[in-house]
Amino acid sequence: MTSGAADVSDVSTLAAVRAAYARGAAPEDVIDAVLARIEACPDPAAWIRVRPRAALLAEAHLLDPARRAELPLWGVPFAVKDNIDCAGLPTTCAFRPREASAATRDAVVVARLRAAGAIPVGKTNLDQFATGLVGVRSPYGIPRCVFDADYVSGGSSSGSAVAVARGHVPFSLGTDTAGSGRVPAAFNHLVGVKPTRGLLSTSGVVPASRSLDCVSVFAASTAEADLVRRVAQGFDADDPYARPMDARSLPIARATLGVLSAADREFFGDGHAANLYARAVEATAGLGHAVREIDFAPFREAARLLYGGAWVAERLAALEEVLDAHADALEPVIRTILLDARRHGGAAAFRACHALAALRRRADAVWADVDALLLPTAPTIYRVADVLAEPLALNANLGTYTNFVNLLDCCAVAVPAGFTPRGLPFGVTVAAPAFRDDDLAILADGLHRALEPSFGLERAPLPGESPRGGAGGSGTVDLAVVGAHLRGEPLHHQLTERGAMLVTATTTAPEYRLFALAGTVPAKPGLVREPGFAGPGIAVEVWRLSSSKFGELVAEVPPPLAIGSVVLADGRVVKGFVCEPFAVTGGALDITAHGGWRAYRRSLDA
Amino acid sequence: MTSGAADVSDVSTLAAVRAAYARGAAPEDVIDAVLARIEACPDPAAWIRVRPRAALLAEAHLLDPARRAELPLWGVPFAVKDNIDCAGLPTTCAFRPREASAATRDAVVVARLRAAGAIPVGKTNLDQFATGLVGVRSPYGIPRCVFDADYVSGGSSSGSAVAVARGHVPFSLGTDTAGSGRVPAAFNHLVGVKPTRGLLSTSGVVPASRSLDCVSVFAASTAEADLVRRVAQGFDADDPYARPMDARSLPIARATLGVLSAADREFFGDGHAANLYARAVEATAGLGHAVREIDFAPFREAARLLYGGAWVAERLAALEEVLDAHADALEPVIRTILLDARRHGGAAAFRACHALAALRRRADAVWADVDALLLPTAPTIYRVADVLAEPLALNANLGTYTNFVNLLDCCAVAVPAGFTPRGLPFGVTVAAPAFRDDDLAILADGLHRALEPSFGLERAPLPGESPRGGAGGSGTVDLAVVGAHLRGEPLHHQLTERGAMLVTATTTAPEYRLFALAGTVPAKPGLVREPGFAGPGIAVEVWRLSSSKFGELVAEVPPPLAIGSVVLADGRVVKGFVCEPFAVTGGALDITAHGGWRAYRRSLDA
Repeated sequence: MTSGAADVSDVSTLAAVRAAYARGAAPEDVIDAVLARIEACPDPAAWIRVRPRAALLAEAHLLDPARRAELPLWGVPFAVKDNIDCAGLPTTCAFRPREASAATRDAVVVARLRAAGAIPVGKTNLDQFATGLVGVRSPYGIPRCVFDADYVSGGSSSGSAVAVARGHVPFSLGTDTAGSGRVPAAFNHLVGVKPTRGLLSTSGVVPASRSLDCVSVFAASTAEADLVRRVAQGFDADDPYARPMDARSLPIARATLGVLSAADREFFGDGHAANLYARAVEATAGLGHAVREIDFAPFREAARLLYGGAWVAERLAALEEVLDAHADALEPVIRTILLDARRHGGAAAFRACHALAALRRRADAVWADVDALLLPTAPTIYRVADVLAEPLALNANLGTYTNFVNLLDCCAVAVPAGFTPRGLPFGVTVAAPAFRDDDLAILADGLHRALEPSFGLERAPLPGESPRGGAGGSGTVDLAVVGAHLRGEPLHHQLTERGAMLVTATTTAPEYRLFALAGTVPAKPGLVREPGFAGPGIAVEVWRLSSSKFGELVAEVPPPLAIGSVVLADGRVVKGFVCEPFAVTGGALDITAHGGWRAYRRSLDA
Repeated sequence: MTSGAADVSDVSTLAAVRAAYARGAAPEDVIDAVLARIEACPDPAAWIRVRPRAALLAEAHLLDPARRAELPLWGVPFAVKDNIDCAGLPTTCAFRPREASAATRDAVVVARLRAAGAIPVGKTNLDQFATGLVGVRSPYGIPRCVFDADYVSGGSSSGSAVAVARGHVPFSLGTDTAGSGRVPAAFNHLVGVKPTRGLLSTSGVVPASRSLDCVSVFAASTAEADLVRRVAQGFDADDPYARPMDARSLPIARATLGVLSAADREFFGDGHAANLYARAVEATAGLGHAVREIDFAPFREAARLLYGGAWVAERLAALEEVLDAHADALEPVIRTILLDARRHGGAAAFRACHALAALRRRADAVWADVDALLLPTAPTIYRVADVLAEPLALNANLGTYTNFVNLLDCCAVAVPAGFTPRGLPFGVTVAAPAFRDDDLAILADGLHRALEPSFGLERAPLPGESPRGGAGGSGTVDLAVVGAHLRGEPLHHQLTERGAMLVTATTTAPEYRLFALAGTVPAKPGLVREPGFAGPGIAVEVWRLSSSKFGELVAEVPPPLAIGSVVLADGRVVKGFVCEPFAVTGGALDITAHGGWRAYRRSLDA
């Protein structure tokens, strides 16, 4: 394959890379564009290692052009945080002694992305052993906030964020235990998708706090990050903490979002961040969502549990051998953290687990009232010099709104939310209980587009595509109801008590008749399809509920009703109430002309 | 209420107590029978405290005779292990300093049983702080195996088992972290139901290993123990480890039971126990179940994790204050265990959690092949003198087949399985993954009735009732299939891949016709009810699957088929495949005379 004359000046989004291929560019062109951008980068600390051009081109040559339409990431370059294995490269974790050996195979997530056509360009810098939210704890240098080199890039996935924000590659992998996939997104004006724990394999990822570690994705938009998340996702039986996706829905059109009360708004003196958060809350309400102030205490207490007590011993569990063998090679602040972690006994560790269990229950009370939380991603951003001077306290501050997320088993998406007057970026994060990833991406995308529809150093406009969302995802079912389950009708509670959410109120295709069924209590209609009939269409409401709740509801449906398939006015087919033939062969009254059950019932009252 | 002349000589089963009431006995008569039996008991160590007769009678007088039919445990006396709170009584945990104060309220499980009409008679002995499987670690004396006072009763729920085995009360509450609700059942010829973690609240139960502790039930039969379990069960938001029931089914008629291979059969030299286990395996196969030898390694390794390593620090977490304040008052062996637990650091505790996660995944591979495990409850039984001489090692041996159960999130039922030639009892346990409790009780009852249908010291015959089982329980749906989902037909995999289990092969009521639907791929029939029609009945298979999987399957059903209600030959109504009217008004062929889809298809091949 030889390069055409295609212009490949922009490799900062999936959309741009795909457009280049559509214009006739070859993978070599894209690779060269990536290498040129890395070469020209003024921040030398973002990458720890870039693969040789020859190796990248050789991998690009293996891509079958015939599979471009089929492979979602065909020829898409990406960056890999250097605590995730790429075969043939060392996985340094920003710890020089690890340079001595190379990974023998790809981490599962890298292998999945490669199988989808993506090309790992190299390994990016991080806070050593992914321990930190600052990005200054590395012997490979300090990546800087792309907007102001006096400021930190955030960590621990510092290089992965900088590489995307500077347009080197359209996406990168990070990891996220305490916020490492979100804080650097906020500090570099990007989206950071932190999936539900266990959805993306951690096989081949060097553990930090093993029960909490997640692989995360940085990209320009939620849609692009979420597409990568879906490709990288897949149950891995070799990862003890892997979980299969068990998708749950969110009321994406009109969600109730929990926000901080005035008393809980801690920005460590950063009035600009406070203003931007207030603005984000206001704008969210303007999108049709409800915002509700929550009791943040259980979340704050869980956040403190991560580093403020014995949970740090989980990090020691991963690094104790390193501490014993190479204490001198550790960054001093990491060494201090690990040595201090030794004071926590086993009983304290279990007490921390018990405390977390109690906090989860307290958080459940909040989740009963809200669908997701809308929080600052980080309360402020710090100068590098200030963090170096006060490395522990300032790092801890940055985790105020992120540390709890994995402990309390949430998924989260960090999105840009504006700039301070001096041009520093601010971000917000939406977080929801596990397995809402699909719908949370839709919510987050809406916020991103409303708050600050740009990304990265160039504040470039967002690529257009919105997230695929959960409608087609597993785990939920859309059900058309036509009679006693409509809002205000006597069996509607069977939907609401199962957490169903209204997707749309519409009508069926014209080929349906509606009958008032004789002898049903409460009175019910029967929807009957008659191919070729051209009626007015029957009014229906489409409600979405989980497979499990749907199954329960179907089990309750009495004869002659049944759950079959219903064609809507727009041609879409959803599940819906139908009826057995015998019910409409006898004394059933054809009420099609009324156009729906409610209209028919009103006509009786009139 | 005054006592009639009713004979209340037997209070050893729920059935006997109910029969006494049916014969006209008053609760006073039952209370007096209980007190008389306790008074006459040759083992003084079973009870730590029996409530005064006046208090018991006062409570009995509060029972409304009009509610006898309604309250499942009306007037039923029971015993409470003395680590579970009963309002007004100390909860000693077999630790004398705790005698000084009384519980101010009932534990949730006690409150639930009382609300159902049951009367707590008093508190029973235990291994101190529920730490032990032997029953010898108590300042209140050593309850003995009811068949031979040289032998241990098992623990830690020693007194609760002895009280039921001696017929003092028809049931008792124990607790079970490592096997404390099962080993004493085996050693006293009883059923011990160890529910799924979190189903029964532990609010008001003194913690041992808090993330693992369960309340358990001892009774004569699985049916009676399981009835108590259902009454005591209920989600308690104040218990951080509580979980709502999410019932899963087991193929109760023809289960595949995992059994120990010859190499894994460890009985510590007890050939009689080995023989009785071999006999139980053989008898199980004779009941129509399949038995399959499993890889016991992940279960054995999990069992060792509980006491062989850092997990013991969770027990220290519960008892560290006691150790610091009252070390001298602790039983010496308990003190030794707790002091030794201090050597485990926090990192080791988290590593133990990680090791458990990996073992759970390895156990999943076994669960993919078997429905439940059939194991010895304990590998042998020991003399009191031997345990006192070697307190740690022999105690550890007893947990060989029980320690893993809560760590690997299983429910379990221990049932009697015969006697050695010298008259010592032997028991087996069936264990299955969480939330199979309902169906597991049915499986266990079948084994109990096949292996040794008696209970307690008197080896009395079992009360007749069998467990209620999961058929009527929440969370499963029975679905009649009639065409392409039948065994051997092209869509049958939609059932098997969702774990559906065959309930029965039967026919519909006579009022159904079957049509071969035109233009369906794969070819499908439509089942049509015609009230008044008297046909041959249509062959169906009824499959049971979880609500969630049922919901998924319904979502996949294409038009014109739908899921409605189907009347079976025996009059029972189940969910089933029906079809929309339009499918049978056109060119559908009436194949009712064939009696079913398979017969029709065979006729085409002929």
